[in-house]
Amino acid sequence: MILRIDRIQTEMPPPSDPDPAGAARVQELMGGRFGEMSTLMNYTFQSFNFRNRQGARPFYDLIANIAAEEYGHIELVAIAINTMLTGATPPANGRPPGDALADLKDQAINPHHFLAGGQGALPQDSRANPWTGDYVFSSGDLVEDLTHNFFLETGARNNKLKVYEMVDHPAARALTGYLLVRGGVHQVAYARAVELLTGADLTKMFPTPRIPTAKIPECKPHLDAGSHLKLYRFSPNDYKEIVAVFTGPHPETGEELEVVDNAPEGFPMHDLPSQPAVFAPDYAPEEIKEIAQKLRKKAGLPDEPLGEVASSGNGGGIADKVKSKLS
Amino acid sequence: MILRIDRIQTEMPPPSDPDPAGAARVQELMGGRFGEMSTLMNYTFQSFNFRNRQGARPFYDLIANIAAEEYGHIELVAIAINTMLTGATPPANGRPPGDALADLKDQAINPHHFLAGGQGALPQDSRANPWTGDYVFSSGDLVEDLTHNFFLETGARNNKLKVYEMVDHPAARALTGYLLVRGGVHQVAYARAVELLTGADLTKMFPTPRIPTAKIPECKPHLDAGSHLKLYRFSPNDYKEIVAVFTGPHPETGEELEVVDNAPEGFPMHDLPSQPAVFAPDYAPEEIKEIAQKLRKKAGLPDEPLGEVASSGNGGGIADKVKSKLS
Amino acid sequence: MILRIDRIQTEMPPPSDPDPAGAARVQELMGGRFGEMSTLMNYTFQSFNFRNRQGARPFYDLIANIAAEEYGHIELVAIAINTMLTGATPPANGRPPGDALADLKDQAINPHHFLAGGQGALPQDSRANPWTGDYVFSSGDLVEDLTHNFFLETGARNNKLKVYEMVDHPAARALTGYLLVRGGVHQVAYARAVELLTGADLTKMFPTPRIPTAKIPECKPHLDAGSHLKLYRFSPNDYKEIVAVFTGPHPETGEELEVVDNAPEGFPMHDLPSQPAVFAPDYAPEEIKEIAQKLRKKAGLPDEPLGEVASSGNGGGIADKVKSKLS
Amino acid sequence: MILRIDRIQTEMPPPSDPDPAGAARVQELMGGRFGEMSTLMNYTFQSFNFRNRQGARPFYDLIANIAAEEYGHIELVAIAINTMLTGATPPANGRPPGDALADLKDQAINPHHFLAGGQGALPQDSRANPWTGDYVFSSGDLVEDLTHNFFLETGARNNKLKVYEMVDHPAARALTGYLLVRGGVHQVAYARAVELLTGADLTKMFPTPRIPTAKIPECKPHLDAGSHLKLYRFSPNDYKEIVAVFTGPHPETGEELEVVDNAPEGFPMHDLPSQPAVFAPDYAPEEIKEIAQKLRKKAGLPDEPLGEVASSGNGGGIADKVKSKLS
Amino acid sequence: MILRIDRIQTEMPPPSDPDPAGAARVQELMGGRFGEMSTLMNYTFQSFNFRNRQGARPFYDLIANIAAEEYGHIELVAIAINTMLTGATPPANGRPPGDALADLKDQAINPHHFLAGGQGALPQDSRANPWTGDYVFSSGDLVEDLTHNFFLETGARNNKLKVYEMVDHPAARALTGYLLVRGGVHQVAYARAVELLTGADLTKMFPTPRIPTAKIPECKPHLDAGSHLKLYRFSPNDYKEIVAVFTGPHPETGEELEVVDNAPEGFPMHDLPSQPAVFAPDYAPEEIKEIAQKLRKKAGLPDEPLGEVASSGNGGGIADKVKSKLS
Amino acid sequence: MILRIDRIQTEMPPPSDPDPAGAARVQELMGGRFGEMSTLMNYTFQSFNFRNRQGARPFYDLIANIAAEEYGHIELVAIAINTMLTGATPPANGRPPGDALADLKDQAINPHHFLAGGQGALPQDSRANPWTGDYVFSSGDLVEDLTHNFFLETGARNNKLKVYEMVDHPAARALTGYLLVRGGVHQVAYARAVELLTGADLTKMFPTPRIPTAKIPECKPHLDAGSHLKLYRFSPNDYKEIVAVFTGPHPETGEELEVVDNAPEGFPMHDLPSQPAVFAPDYAPEEIKEIAQKLRKKAGLPDEPLGEVASSGNGGGIADKVKSKLS
Repeated sequence: MILRIDRIQTEMPPPSDPDPAGAARVQELMGGRFGEMSTLMNYTFQSFNFRNRQGARPFYDLIANIAAEEYGHIELVAIAINTMLTGATPPANGRPPGDALADLKDQAINPHHFLAGGQGALPQDSRANPWTGDYVFSSGDLVEDLTHNFFLETGARNNKLKVYEMVDHPAARALTGYLLVRGGVHQVAYARAVELLTGADLTKMFPTPRIPTAKIPECKPHLDAGSHLKLYRFSPNDYKEIVAVFTGPHPETGEELEVVDNAPEGFPMHDLPSQPAVFAPDYAPEEIKEIAQKLRKKAGLPDEPLGEVASSGNGGGIADKVKSKLS
Repeated sequence: MILRIDRIQTEMPPPSDPDPAGAARVQELMGGRFGEMSTLMNYTFQSFNFRNRQGARPFYDLIANIAAEEYGHIELVAIAINTMLTGATPPANGRPPGDALADLKDQAINPHHFLAGGQGALPQDSRANPWTGDYVFSSGDLVEDLTHNFFLETGARNNKLKVYEMVDHPAARALTGYLLVRGGVHQVAYARAVELLTGADLTKMFPTPRIPTAKIPECKPHLDAGSHLKLYRFSPNDYKEIVAVFTGPHPETGEELEVVDNAPEGFPMHDLPSQPAVFAPDYAPEEIKEIAQKLRKKAGLPDEPLGEVASSGNGGGIADKVKSKLS
Repeated sequence: MILRIDRIQTEMPPPSDPDPAGAARVQELMGGRFGEMSTLMNYTFQSFNFRNRQGARPFYDLIANIAAEEYGHIELVAIAINTMLTGATPPANGRPPGDALADLKDQAINPHHFLAGGQGALPQDSRANPWTGDYVFSSGDLVEDLTHNFFLETGARNNKLKVYEMVDHPAARALTGYLLVRGGVHQVAYARAVELLTGADLTKMFPTPRIPTAKIPECKPHLDAGSHLKLYRFSPNDYKEIVAVFTGPHPETGEELEVVDNAPEGFPMHDLPSQPAVFAPDYAPEEIKEIAQKLRKKAGLPDEPLGEVASSGNGGGIADKVKSKLS
Repeated sequence: MILRIDRIQTEMPPPSDPDPAGAARVQELMGGRFGEMSTLMNYTFQSFNFRNRQGARPFYDLIANIAAEEYGHIELVAIAINTMLTGATPPANGRPPGDALADLKDQAINPHHFLAGGQGALPQDSRANPWTGDYVFSSGDLVEDLTHNFFLETGARNNKLKVYEMVDHPAARALTGYLLVRGGVHQVAYARAVELLTGADLTKMFPTPRIPTAKIPECKPHLDAGSHLKLYRFSPNDYKEIVAVFTGPHPETGEELEVVDNAPEGFPMHDLPSQPAVFAPDYAPEEIKEIAQKLRKKAGLPDEPLGEVASSGNGGGIADKVKSKLS
Repeated sequence: MILRIDRIQTEMPPPSDPDPAGAARVQELMGGRFGEMSTLMNYTFQSFNFRNRQGARPFYDLIANIAAEEYGHIELVAIAINTMLTGATPPANGRPPGDALADLKDQAINPHHFLAGGQGALPQDSRANPWTGDYVFSSGDLVEDLTHNFFLETGARNNKLKVYEMVDHPAARALTGYLLVRGGVHQVAYARAVELLTGADLTKMFPTPRIPTAKIPECKPHLDAGSHLKLYRFSPNDYKEIVAVFTGPHPETGEELEVVDNAPEGFPMHDLPSQPAVFAPDYAPEEIKEIAQKLRKKAGLPDEPLGEVASSGNGGGIADKVKSKLS
Repeated sequence: MILRIDRIQTEMPPPSDPDPAGAARVQELMGGRFGEMSTLMNYTFQSFNFRNRQGARPFYDLIANIAAEEYGHIELVAIAINTMLTGATPPANGRPPGDALADLKDQAINPHHFLAGGQGALPQDSRANPWTGDYVFSSGDLVEDLTHNFFLETGARNNKLKVYEMVDHPAARALTGYLLVRGGVHQVAYARAVELLTGADLTKMFPTPRIPTAKIPECKPHLDAGSHLKLYRFSPNDYKEIVAVFTGPHPETGEELEVVDNAPEGFPMHDLPSQPAVFAPDYAPEEIKEIAQKLRKKAGLPDEPLGEVASSGNGGGIADKVKSKLS
């Protein structure tokens, strides 16, 4: 089971200019065959199905623990998409009926971002095709599963770089810069695991694909902080045996790999402003706020929401910079 | 982001007689339109996409927190399936080549449990069709999303009861007994949320479908423990405002609903024995164990694995009851 | 637009022994590429998309009118499936919880008939895969569309005969016997239309496939009644120009084709009994009946339902033979 | 079974400027999860599968009758799409070979509208993904099915409003204006049915989503005519017990709901002009017309086609205004 | 089994201006229901499944032999797409990281051409939906299969003409010009086969659709060379009995059909230049070249590659015209 | 382009007892994610999309050449399935109408083998789900593509072994015995290619999965013949540079790898007998034979068919052993 934390693994920028076409492309990193839904669910099912765990504990712990980190990755992709969609419909005077979505008709958008969804991320790829459970590989054979995972991370890095190259919105760049580094760690982890089990030195293939992360400005701060060397333990008390596998030198830099014995502290999220043209969260968000406030009072909660946000959308008590910039 | 805990939300029985046809049916609760992948991913995406959270914090917290519990539900369904598949191939003399799978050829199994997978759970439904992202509804409109969630839990209860009626394997019964109670809590939570927002008293529809949970032996202990009244807060520090929504009387019993301000302690899992006929985790699990043991020693880990299990499959240091029973 | 009539195009037998495996196979005639959903939707969309209708009115009328008949065919397939599923769960003592579905676990059923649905027909094929809009061909080119339709009816006859050969339940046989004859009429109609437009005498291919309908007992009464020669006009006032195309000799018998200037009178349906084990229509159908009765009284309706049925399931005022046989 | 009428439920505008990108978006209302294929097929299968009808006749009649109306809705969506596609290829000099489709290459069109289809509507959604039978929910449990239907109509209204906001072509606006009103009636009907069965007053949720239909110019005439209060009985003699359920005040206006004991008279359709660039209905429609005319004469039909149209495309005897405007 | 020849059936132009939107549309001819994957796989499976071949040898040979030609057609479609994608990213300075794909973000491209693939053809259609095995029809009934094949070729011609009309890139035009002629031959072959088996003269339907190939400049040279009359035997020693079926006059011209007792000589392909922005074949193709050269030397191969190409991309020893034009 | 040869790569047994349930399972090797359709199409598209071939000729030749061999593998899987389906319906008295398929109704068959198809192989997997183009990976990055191919062959071996273990029909065993050996060669080839490009010695992972091919009786003759060491060149004149990559010692045995500079001679196929119950190739195959014979005579062909078969089904001049055994 899990505990959920209302923070994210890396800092994401606040909404700026909307980029709905870019958001449609970033969906590949969510619901594509090599997207974060795939890494999350592949490792999750492999950990669920792991037989004889006690006999292979370090490997079980490795897969189970990386699965936990991946949950945070689908969260980040969703945030990037939501940030890029913010402002794509007019927030101030956007209450239906009208033609708030008219400008989007001829654009290379994902139509479900607007017609079926509410300017929000979806478990779809860049074709707007849904993620499918058939993307999950769980053979039960440890060496095969690890081989798959190494290949999956390889393909994932390819896709991340290409999204980086295509979409220059700050949210997309912050996302791909971070994921390239963290995906790289997982790729190293699985290569090392195969090596320790079979002797095959997959690490000689690095970097694969040959992405020069050191030259990518959005990767730089993470590399400087040593994030490319660290595997975080995303659990209060479990998965402690990852140290037996995530060890040795980094294949590209030679620096020593390191297990961090806890999750990163994380960062608060921006509270994205409502988009009334698509009823998100409603035609008249202020009425919901009013109801919520009454319920909160009745429950003895303080006046200000307990949830921490990086910036308020338009519902909090703090001055609402984002909203005014957009309207 | 999440922290993962290597324990499960309810106690599950150890492997007994295999039931691969039953396992194929239980998959509906995993990857069906109303399965746990759907509840998990619907609430997860709705929480990711929630705009103006500060203005509607209790509702955001409710959806985000229930999403966290659902992760534990896909885990439980996977365990039930894996338990039922255990022993479906001969573990002792089952090393290939041979005809270890011959008896399964004519049965109503999910062929991917054996041919493509390794006697493990998959994100598929009872037709062996994959779960798809198109099962996710995330309109952004709070009232619509909650209406959907109430309907989704209703359909989910229907499916759970039917699996209960079809499959009497102890693992399937333990699963459905538990999920009927917990799904019931979520159904109440969403109905109450709609009521508080709109005044519509959906709770008058309860029980819907008209499942007499009190008469189901496998629900009984959970009802006796009051589990049908409790919403656990699956987070170290967040989602505290659920108390503002999950409140008032239970629609069926009139008892007061209750927020438990932490996750349940949980139970350890059984370490399911290897199934060498399908290479899970390998043709010769003892070799993997040997490698793992060397790596563990090198990493300074103690002789016994750090992971806690309810019973050892066949790789641990504890006497292996399960294995002997099956071979 | 349409008017719906609560009668069916041919007489169907009452429920007898259940045959859930047979029902799973009959689904091919519903949701397969050559099933009735396909014939219905192909002709419906072709008629919607027909350009320059006034210039080609007889052909527009032909396609539009056959589309209307096909609606009645998906109805018949559904009735056959529902009839075969009736009694597959114990109706009398089948109220959950229990193990009313246990016997079905190991059978070659469509699991959705029981787990996701309520012992009812679904828009799926014999693999339990859903019908898809990609089965619709609507090129807009009249000759191409007619060529397609001729081919579609050819494939459909193939599938119908095979279901006939595999499933001998009286409902399946009544269904396929009727559909083979009516599908044959449509096949002739499209072949004749191509012939009149291009001169190509497709009728020389008849019978294709070489099904000896005259030797099929369940086709016999329909042949004796001349049904293989008649095209009914399923409309109060429209589609009158079909006479210009559906004309000339029948390719197999040489008898003259005939347009019947109205729909057939039809037959009432059996009111299939409730199946409480799957909540169809509820755990306790008598309560629903009671509510309905009150509402009917309040609306000034007579004591007996206005709907005509061939036999009552278990909710009507007439002596309930079906129910007693099954319980 | 059905009778088909060659008229439509509301008046639609003649072709004007083409809008192929808009047509691609309107497809969501045809083949999306909440499109009219879904409402049609959900209610159709629920009525087919309804057990113990005599005991719950008013509810059976309600679902079966609304299903009948929905057939007219897929027809209207198709007409809107076809109207918007008319003129997207040059009709006068558009005979292949040439580059009649060149301008469309870079547009946000549905490529199947032109490459696989013939400038006609398809059972696809706004992503160009096909409608699938998995969108049908038919649990057999009356309360569940009605809950689903209420939710389905809610989601459908959301999608209709968004298409309204995105596409301002007169055909799209006429369509969505009408469907918002009629879908609203169905939403009320299902909410009322749930209320009468369970006591839960779902009507307190109205309007949901909060669409201000009264402010939508294209809804106005329908509201003025009281269409939002009326349920038409789409049958010569059946489904008479709908009066027992469709009763009481309208949740938004308090006006009394009303059953109209017949179908609306309807309106004739525009005969859309041929588009020879895509062979619809042929490279040389005048040749087809000539053949048709001979066949008509031979069949003793009058010189003018019997079918009534609002305006002739280019095949009829009436002066062809549409064609000349476009060429 | 097959022998593969590194040559193509018709001459294709070298890369010129890129046309990624056009490439997305041409995919319909690859992975659409009527694309070359479909013709290839339909005939391939029909030949695999052909029972009693000795008794119907000419027909078996016909289907098996046309299947062999179709392999060359998927190759040609791939080449057209790859040619049109060449240069869509900057080849010279396109090494990541950068924004080499930025211009593509807002275009009507297939996103998988760039994000998931490497500027290469995919088994997808113009919607970017994958080809599916459900497009294969293999009933085993010879007359039905031939009827299907005639219809399939008819639909395929329709799609080819429309792609011709939409995309004027030289590669697309060379492709469609050639495929229209060769597809026409297959259409004739299947029509004749049906005629010989049943007497039905499908050839009266020609041309269907009514494509005036003689007026299409890119068809002209193939018609002048008599390609529309010739069926090549794509086998060293087999399928010799095609002469018994592919015989008689061409339905449109009356000229005699002709079996050519060998495969055409074919043409060498252009070696398309690398596109380093998408790592095709790598970030630094020159390093791969260096490795390859060493391996070649070690294996005793000559300095110049043994493979013949129409023009070198950027890896060969020949002066690289293509590359310089693009950079 | 290709030349097709009417022979197969290994000897397959004649039909014996039918095994339709086994045939359903063998489909995984045809249309599963790791089936032969996938290996064929992955390598085919990768070769089509290979940029800068001259610079990396040995690698291009390797992928293109293995693709050619894979065509022969889908052929073998089809033959195994068709052989196992032969006799599943009564051949002698099986002419419809009757109940020739009745016994199959309750079995774990693929329903499309009988209802939609004609007792023939289909591009589907063991779930009866179609093969999809989304199984193709073609990144354009040589190292990535080769990594994928190594993983694909690994997964494919897993699936082959499991089918071997489940299905003991002689045709299935002959198939899997052969494919395990040949797939092993491809796995070695791709591992060696990665090693030569990057230095990573993937061969240390062998055998992966740990299949003891030497202990499998049906692998034995192929191993004895050295087939596990040989890469055949499936081309008259091309792909000669494979020698530069397929070289060095076999990872498991240390024996030297060997390029055979031509395709194997191959074996003739059994002419499978007709199955009139499913119209394959017709209701009355002797009539087709008669027509074919006339056409053959007219074309000047000899009395006996030119095609060579291992044994005649029921259409040839040779005494028909197969047929008499089955009837």
